[in-house]
Amino acid sequence: MLLTPHCRSPASPWPDGNSLGALPRSAPARVQEVVEREWGEHLIGGWRKDGWMTYPERLGNKIAKLIGAGAGEVIAVDTISINLFKLIAAALALKPTRRTVLTDTGNFPTDVYMADGLIQLLGCRHRLRLVEEDEIEAAIDDDTAVVMLTHVNYRSGRVYDMAEITRIAQMKGALVIWDLAHSAGAVPVDLTRAGADFAVGCGYKYLNGGPGSPAFVYVALRHHDRTSQPLTGWLGHADPFAFDLAYRPAAGILHYKCSTPSILAMAPLECGVDIMLEAGIKRLRAKSMVLGDLFIQLMDARLDGQGFRPACPRRAEARGSQVSFHHQDGYAIMQALIERGVVGDFRAPDILRFGLTPAYVRHVDIWDAVEILKEIMDSRAYDRAEFKERASVT
Amino acid sequence: MLLTPHCRSPASPWPDGNSLGALPRSAPARVQEVVEREWGEHLIGGWRKDGWMTYPERLGNKIAKLIGAGAGEVIAVDTISINLFKLIAAALALKPTRRTVLTDTGNFPTDVYMADGLIQLLGCRHRLRLVEEDEIEAAIDDDTAVVMLTHVNYRSGRVYDMAEITRIAQMKGALVIWDLAHSAGAVPVDLTRAGADFAVGCGYKYLNGGPGSPAFVYVALRHHDRTSQPLTGWLGHADPFAFDLAYRPAAGILHYKCSTPSILAMAPLECGVDIMLEAGIKRLRAKSMVLGDLFIQLMDARLDGQGFRPACPRRAEARGSQVSFHHQDGYAIMQALIERGVVGDFRAPDILRFGLTPAYVRHVDIWDAVEILKEIMDSRAYDRAEFKERASVT
Repeated sequence: MLLTPHCRSPASPWPDGNSLGALPRSAPARVQEVVEREWGEHLIGGWRKDGWMTYPERLGNKIAKLIGAGAGEVIAVDTISINLFKLIAAALALKPTRRTVLTDTGNFPTDVYMADGLIQLLGCRHRLRLVEEDEIEAAIDDDTAVVMLTHVNYRSGRVYDMAEITRIAQMKGALVIWDLAHSAGAVPVDLTRAGADFAVGCGYKYLNGGPGSPAFVYVALRHHDRTSQPLTGWLGHADPFAFDLAYRPAAGILHYKCSTPSILAMAPLECGVDIMLEAGIKRLRAKSMVLGDLFIQLMDARLDGQGFRPACPRRAEARGSQVSFHHQDGYAIMQALIERGVVGDFRAPDILRFGLTPAYVRHVDIWDAVEILKEIMDSRAYDRAEFKERASVT
Repeated sequence: MLLTPHCRSPASPWPDGNSLGALPRSAPARVQEVVEREWGEHLIGGWRKDGWMTYPERLGNKIAKLIGAGAGEVIAVDTISINLFKLIAAALALKPTRRTVLTDTGNFPTDVYMADGLIQLLGCRHRLRLVEEDEIEAAIDDDTAVVMLTHVNYRSGRVYDMAEITRIAQMKGALVIWDLAHSAGAVPVDLTRAGADFAVGCGYKYLNGGPGSPAFVYVALRHHDRTSQPLTGWLGHADPFAFDLAYRPAAGILHYKCSTPSILAMAPLECGVDIMLEAGIKRLRAKSMVLGDLFIQLMDARLDGQGFRPACPRRAEARGSQVSFHHQDGYAIMQALIERGVVGDFRAPDILRFGLTPAYVRHVDIWDAVEILKEIMDSRAYDRAEFKERASVT
C-alpha cells in the first residue's frame, strides 16, 4: 500500500511530516531552474515570462483541488498568521453588530495571538472567547461574529466536523474561519460542500513545501466582492503598475494579496502539491488511517504499563494524520527517540506527537518506531540529564 | 573601478538592478545546500542544527552594518508592506494624542496603501496627509504622529536628507519611518547618526536577494521595550514552544517577528548582503555616482533635442543609485530598450528609470545603453504598435 516514493527518502527513518514535510524529489531541480534560469537569466523579465506575477493564484488553484474549493477561491501567499489577520478583520467588518471572536482552548497559539493582536489594535471593542472543544457549538450565540477553529487539533489530532459546525454557526448568524494547517494534504476537506466562509492553511507540513513555505488563504466566492482586508499592499491593487496613490482592490480573491511573494519559496511548494494531487487525497487518507491504527495497536501490545496514554482519538475517522500520547517524561523520551532517528514533536505539557505522512511513511516504519520506543523505555535510555532540560527551540 | 564581479554576468547587458538585482554567484550553491542538505537531510532538525530559528536576526545584523544600525536593531522578515503596517501601528500607539500620518505624494504607492488600510481599520480616527516633497518639513505639526518617507524616490531618485528631516520631526514631537527600498546597498545610510526611529527595506533590489526576497525592519534600541506591534504571531512570542495561550512579546526587536520565515528565500539574500559588505558601501556609492554622472553627460551629448528631460537630480549627492528621464513616448521607448537588452523600468506617467547597480554595472554598459537608446530614437524603432499598449505587468 506504499504510495510512489516521490519524496526523497529522509536520513531518519521517521521524518516529522507534520512539522516539516520531507523534500519532494522534484524540488531541487525546480528550485535550481528558478534560481539559475528564471532569476539568473530572465531577471525582472521573470515576472512576465515565467509567470511569477500570477504564481499565487495558479498555485492556489492547485491547492483548491486538495481542499474542495473552486478555482479562483484560493491563493498561495504570506503566512498563516498574516492570512488569519486578514480574514478575522474581514469577518468582523461583515458583522459590525457582533463583538465576539470564538475559538477553543486547544487552538494553535498563533491563531489565538493574531486574533488577540487585532482585537487590541481595534481598541478592545471585541472580545476573544476561548471555550473547550466540546463546548464550541453551544457557545455560538448572537454576539458571535466569527468562529475560528483549527480543523485538526495540533496536539491530539482530533478532527472537527467542519460541515456541522459551519452549519450551526451560519444558522446562528456567525462566520467561520477554518485553519487547515494539519488538514491540507492529510485529511479530506471539502470546503464547498461544508459551505465554508474562510480558511487558511500551511505549505510546509503535509504539502511538503519546505521550511517557511508560503501559506494559503481561501475566501468563498460569495464573499469576494463584499469583503475587504486591511493589509492593502500594492499587489492586491486592481492595477499595481498604474502606481495610483488611491487603493482600488483587485477583483475576486486577488485583493487578499499584499506584497511581492517569494518565488523561490513558491517553487518547491508546487512540487509538493503536485505529489498530493497525483497520489489523491482519498488514497493518502486510507493509508494514513491504517498507519495510525497500527501505531496505536502496537503501543497497546508492546508498551502497555509503561505510562503512555493516547492523546488522540482511537477511532481513525475522528483522527487527523497523526497519533499522539501523553507521558510524564514525554520531553526526555522524544529527545531519545530523535537521537535514534524517530523524529516526532514534543508538545507541552506532556505530549509526544507522531506525524503520519502517508506519501512516504511505510508500515515497517511504524513497527520500527514502536520497537525503538520500547527499547528506550526498557533501557531507560531517556533518563539522561541532557534530555531533561527543555530547549527553547524544538 | 569595476568591483569584483561577484554577481553572475546577466544575460542582458543592462540588468534592472533597482527592480530585481542580479543573481549572486554564490547563491545557487547556497540554495542547493539549504534544499538538499538542510531540508532534505536534517528535516525539522534544521531549525536548531542549521540555525534557521535565528536566521532573521543573524541576517538582520549583517544588514544593520549596511545601514548604520546597531546589532539587535534589524531583523530580516516578512515584506516591506507588512513591516510598514507593524511600524505605523507601533508609532501611532506611541503618539496617542496625535492623528496625522504624513507622507509625500511621490512615495511608493504600497506605503501609502498600507497606511490607508491601517487608518481605515482603526475607524478613520487618523488622517493620511500627502504633501509635495518640498513641503514635508513645513507640514510637520503638533498633530503629526508619524512622518513616513521613502529615502530615495522610486521615480526621480531624489535623496531626502534623513538626518535633517528626522531632527525636525522629532523636535516637533513626531516619529519618522524611513523606507530604504532604494537605499540599502545603494547609498550610504546611517540610521544611528540620524537618530532614526524606525525603518524598513527591501531584499530583492540592491541587496540581490532574488524575486520576493524577505524584507527587513529596523527599530531603534530606545523603542524596543516601549513599542508593540499588532501582528502578534507565535515567532514573536517570548517562548514560542511553551504554547501558552497568552501572548508575551519577545525581548528586543524579536517581537517584530510574526510567523515562520522562508528559509529558502533567506539564503540567497544572505549571499547578496555578503557581497555588499565585502564591496563596502562607500566604494559602491563612489562608483554609482560616477556612473550616474556619465549617463546624464552622455544623454546631454548624444540625445539632445530628442525630447528627454532629466527626472532625477543632476547633482550626484542628491541622487540615489539610479537615473531617470521624462519622455512622452517613455513606455514604448522602454519596451524597445528591453528588446535590445537594456532593461530599465517604465514608471507612470512618463518616466524611464535605469538602476545603477555598481557591483556589476560597468562604465562601458553606460556607453552601450546610451548608444542603443540613440539608435532607437534615430530609427524610431520604438514606434511600433506592440510597444504602445501598456501591459498590466512590467
